[in-house]
Amino acid sequence: MNMDFRILRVDLTNKTFKEEVIEEDLVKKYLGGRGLGAYLALKEIPKGADPLGPENKLYFFSGPLSGIATMSSSRFTVVGKSPLTGSYTHSNAGGNFSYWLRFSGFDGIVIEGMSDKPVYLAIIDGKYELKDASKIWGQWTGSATRMILKENGFPEDETKAGVAVIGPAGENLVKFAGIRASDYERFAGRGGLGAVMGSKKLKGIIVYGKRNLLNTVIDREKFFKANSKVLEKIIKQDTTKTLHAYGTNVLMQIVNSMGALPAMNFTTTMNTEKISGEYIKSNYVVATHGCHDCPIACTQMAMVTTGPFKVSGEEIKYEYESTWTIGPNIGLNQPEPVLKLQKIANELGLDIISLGNTLATTVELAKKGKLKLDVDWGDAAVFQDLAYKIAYREGIGNELAEGDYALAMKYNEPNAFQGARGQGLPAYDPRVFKGFAIAYYTANRGGDHLEAYAPTWELFGVPEKTDPLDESEAGIEKEVKIVKWNQDIFAVVDSAVFCKFENLLPNVDTEQDFADLLNAAFGWNMSQEDIAKIGERIFNVERLFHVKEGKWVKDELAPRMREPVSSGPAKGNTASKMFDEGIKRYYELRGWIDGKPTKETLERLGLEEFESLVS
Amino acid sequence: MNMDFRILRVDLTNKTFKEEVIEEDLVKKYLGGRGLGAYLALKEIPKGADPLGPENKLYFFSGPLSGIATMSSSRFTVVGKSPLTGSYTHSNAGGNFSYWLRFSGFDGIVIEGMSDKPVYLAIIDGKYELKDASKIWGQWTGSATRMILKENGFPEDETKAGVAVIGPAGENLVKFAGIRASDYERFAGRGGLGAVMGSKKLKGIIVYGKRNLLNTVIDREKFFKANSKVLEKIIKQDTTKTLHAYGTNVLMQIVNSMGALPAMNFTTTMNTEKISGEYIKSNYVVATHGCHDCPIACTQMAMVTTGPFKVSGEEIKYEYESTWTIGPNIGLNQPEPVLKLQKIANELGLDIISLGNTLATTVELAKKGKLKLDVDWGDAAVFQDLAYKIAYREGIGNELAEGDYALAMKYNEPNAFQGARGQGLPAYDPRVFKGFAIAYYTANRGGDHLEAYAPTWELFGVPEKTDPLDESEAGIEKEVKIVKWNQDIFAVVDSAVFCKFENLLPNVDTEQDFADLLNAAFGWNMSQEDIAKIGERIFNVERLFHVKEGKWVKDELAPRMREPVSSGPAKGNTASKMFDEGIKRYYELRGWIDGKPTKETLERLGLEEFESLVS
Repeated sequence: MNMDFRILRVDLTNKTFKEEVIEEDLVKKYLGGRGLGAYLALKEIPKGADPLGPENKLYFFSGPLSGIATMSSSRFTVVGKSPLTGSYTHSNAGGNFSYWLRFSGFDGIVIEGMSDKPVYLAIIDGKYELKDASKIWGQWTGSATRMILKENGFPEDETKAGVAVIGPAGENLVKFAGIRASDYERFAGRGGLGAVMGSKKLKGIIVYGKRNLLNTVIDREKFFKANSKVLEKIIKQDTTKTLHAYGTNVLMQIVNSMGALPAMNFTTTMNTEKISGEYIKSNYVVATHGCHDCPIACTQMAMVTTGPFKVSGEEIKYEYESTWTIGPNIGLNQPEPVLKLQKIANELGLDIISLGNTLATTVELAKKGKLKLDVDWGDAAVFQDLAYKIAYREGIGNELAEGDYALAMKYNEPNAFQGARGQGLPAYDPRVFKGFAIAYYTANRGGDHLEAYAPTWELFGVPEKTDPLDESEAGIEKEVKIVKWNQDIFAVVDSAVFCKFENLLPNVDTEQDFADLLNAAFGWNMSQEDIAKIGERIFNVERLFHVKEGKWVKDELAPRMREPVSSGPAKGNTASKMFDEGIKRYYELRGWIDGKPTKETLERLGLEEFESLVS
Repeated sequence: MNMDFRILRVDLTNKTFKEEVIEEDLVKKYLGGRGLGAYLALKEIPKGADPLGPENKLYFFSGPLSGIATMSSSRFTVVGKSPLTGSYTHSNAGGNFSYWLRFSGFDGIVIEGMSDKPVYLAIIDGKYELKDASKIWGQWTGSATRMILKENGFPEDETKAGVAVIGPAGENLVKFAGIRASDYERFAGRGGLGAVMGSKKLKGIIVYGKRNLLNTVIDREKFFKANSKVLEKIIKQDTTKTLHAYGTNVLMQIVNSMGALPAMNFTTTMNTEKISGEYIKSNYVVATHGCHDCPIACTQMAMVTTGPFKVSGEEIKYEYESTWTIGPNIGLNQPEPVLKLQKIANELGLDIISLGNTLATTVELAKKGKLKLDVDWGDAAVFQDLAYKIAYREGIGNELAEGDYALAMKYNEPNAFQGARGQGLPAYDPRVFKGFAIAYYTANRGGDHLEAYAPTWELFGVPEKTDPLDESEAGIEKEVKIVKWNQDIFAVVDSAVFCKFENLLPNVDTEQDFADLLNAAFGWNMSQEDIAKIGERIFNVERLFHVKEGKWVKDELAPRMREPVSSGPAKGNTASKMFDEGIKRYYELRGWIDGKPTKETLERLGLEEFESLVS
């Protein structure tokens, strides 16, 4: 086929549908997923729209390579205006949802308007329908998923169809509610788009079908050749083995040994042996899963079967980031309370990273006597209670449900918020992994480790070893270039859609791989420069959303990152120099002034239609 | 005054009010509280009415002696049709609600119909109003109480006005949702009337006023004399001291030493040292409170300030029954998980006794492989999760929210239900305290230790020592008489309204005390026989509700009580003989046939108007 991106627009206010085909020219510019979502969001979501009002839209987008036997391509992106940050966000998840969505007959879904009653969307074999969700409303994410499967004639097995749902957190408009998507508790967590679903009274989406995507590949031989080349690379990667063996949490000990694993809201470090990937694997992991067609299969499912943190009969998906955020970040370093809290967050439908961030801010404010609450670092039982209170906006939970940034601002303690663009940070101290001193703060969705991941260089030395602490002019130049390059290629990864673990190793021919796959599949004629330009275009379009809103345009370092690391092997480091000097060079490289693309930059990227935003 | 019982009828469907005065003749027959509530419920709630439908009514009734300086009279009763048992129930609570209700200008409130939106009722200084509760809906009982206080200009102090609320359990129609009433987490727990409030979308009631009740007492001198006599008796009672020192949980070790403290759904016994009144007092209790004007002050407030069951900054009200039901009854004998679970239940608005009963049934069914759930006796963490799941009807919680009886019936395991009339038992094994072999199973609300409390004789030897294990003809005769006498006088206590701790010691002149107080206050001329007859009348009226419904008329012993106690000092005992022989004698004494009052009995009690129900 020529790649015509097929979307279904669902108007929840009027309960009407519209099928739409995105023409190939636009697909060539944005591919799908995050890129196409960002482009449409910029054009369609009115300036100043209430993120929790009918004008906000959600773009559930797969990508052109997802589901056509390209390994590790089983991801999709949700784009919309974030109730947490008040501006653009994107969030993606693995599992099978992306495949089932494409098999159902559509490459993407646009959710518009606002229903007056709880509904869910069913797209099955090309037919679509809004169904009554009044009986499912209120259910936690696991049972909501199973109920939707059952109601549509599927076995209660999350792999048999794609289901995305919200829990009570989303229903109750918790600003960092996530969307549980597909099998094994995967989450499009960040940015609070679960609350957007909640505001629209959309409890979930089920997708299923038998559309044969492979039939539409234009040059099968070339395509499989390109495919095999990528597969070979993945299999050769060391990370493939370690990710399969321990999951992402293999990072815990490595990062901590560098002094880059912050604890207690980035004020100290702590021992993490018992929450390491290795320890949890040996003592708690009961199953390992992979997404559709993925040779890595990194998903680790743990169980806690006894003791005060037992979770009855259910497996718990856990990751490095989640283990950190509700672990050391809030003073916990025992596996059982961490796993239990993870389960609670997953079931209630909270973005676990922001939950941890918010709890960390809460403890800091409480210990400073600003917030009236008896809580200390490591108070597992209290954190459990607070997770429930947040999800149900009960009592003090109503305040915490606004998130870490809002809390810190309310109590006039900006230092208690560790994040960027209103969103809290993940599990790497940017005073140590200094690539993140640039990457976190320039990330369009804010505080993000997945828009660019410099530790590939800094930690694994691939493609070459980079010293994260080198703040010489050359060192800064190098980090800035890595970040910019990585931001652009990851925008492509999120739009094609691929998994970043497939592209964890930024081989010099990454762009060429994409070009080969896309050209073979759709008869295109892209060069690796074209691919790089797509990434850059997407990244700029996202930034334009902030420019349009007049929000978060300037990139700013959080105040605590200017203070020295207080303990551990990286003691004494700050992120100030890397950020202050790097950001200037970064703007030059991007062709931006004060965080804003220039007219020339937009023209270079074929974004003339948005010139009025910057002039 | 002459005692004209002033009630406010609130029609939630039409949002209208009607003030009504119950004339003195009727007050003389039923007093108030439970008695008057039962009488009106029998007359007004149509046969077959859905307990969760608009036809059900709730009677929030104080009594004629409450609030006029009679010590320990600060209780009120709620009467209605129970969603748990499907027939008549009553439930009462202490604290200040009863006083504030009377001070507000009314002796009782009748809630009728069904609101379409969440509301709460405010009666302040004789003025009444239904207020929007949409912002309070969803809140747990503590914060709902504080929000209602604040909205009405009171400090956030539960003693400053009377507030009764439901939590999410009531909102979600959990069949054993309770009503948190007034200060310090007191509950009108049993029978699920919280769900009736939920079905009516009535989140709460606030009452406050300055009406001077004492002014209306006819013969002050006589009244204070009678009052002093009662006060003297209370102060002299040993139980006054022990109840003040340790609360009701002083019973734990005493009852267990007799082998009468059932564990694990009445299958065994267990060590309870660490959950004894003495141990908890020494290690966890931080405050002791009393109801308005009460010389006993039995309320114990505990805190758990560290560890995996910490409860942040909040005091926890706990009692003997609650400590047993979510303690040994479900295999727990450590104080911290028990206190934590108590707090969760109180906040979510669950009747704690039925929560424990339901969890006990659940564990038994799970261990038998009937219910698919990984749970064992003592699984504190799982019980916590299940409490949340029940309150929110989430997943398996939706099934458990129907209660222990429904669960046991569904899985065809009647032996897994320990109760009577569809309601689970409290903390005394009726195979050991054999008075309960009669009292539990003849109690009108089912499985109740507060309609008659034979342990006063059996345990404390007051007024005389009675051997609970004596199953000679004389022993059975004695127990039956104790139960019948106690049922009648406790019906008076619940209608006057008094606290049973004041009348814990069934002195032969208890009826005379009531007569003296009532005669002095209202210029009546009652004898102690008249008082006894009021009690008997009330007890019969309640039974007539079951007769009218054609439900639970026959008194039946739960099957496990026919099996011998398996361990402990009372090993080998059953309740069979006491029940089977006792029930015959009990029916004779009551003038009943097969659980049903005869026409002659009704005539003797002045209940001719209900004769058609039994003919």
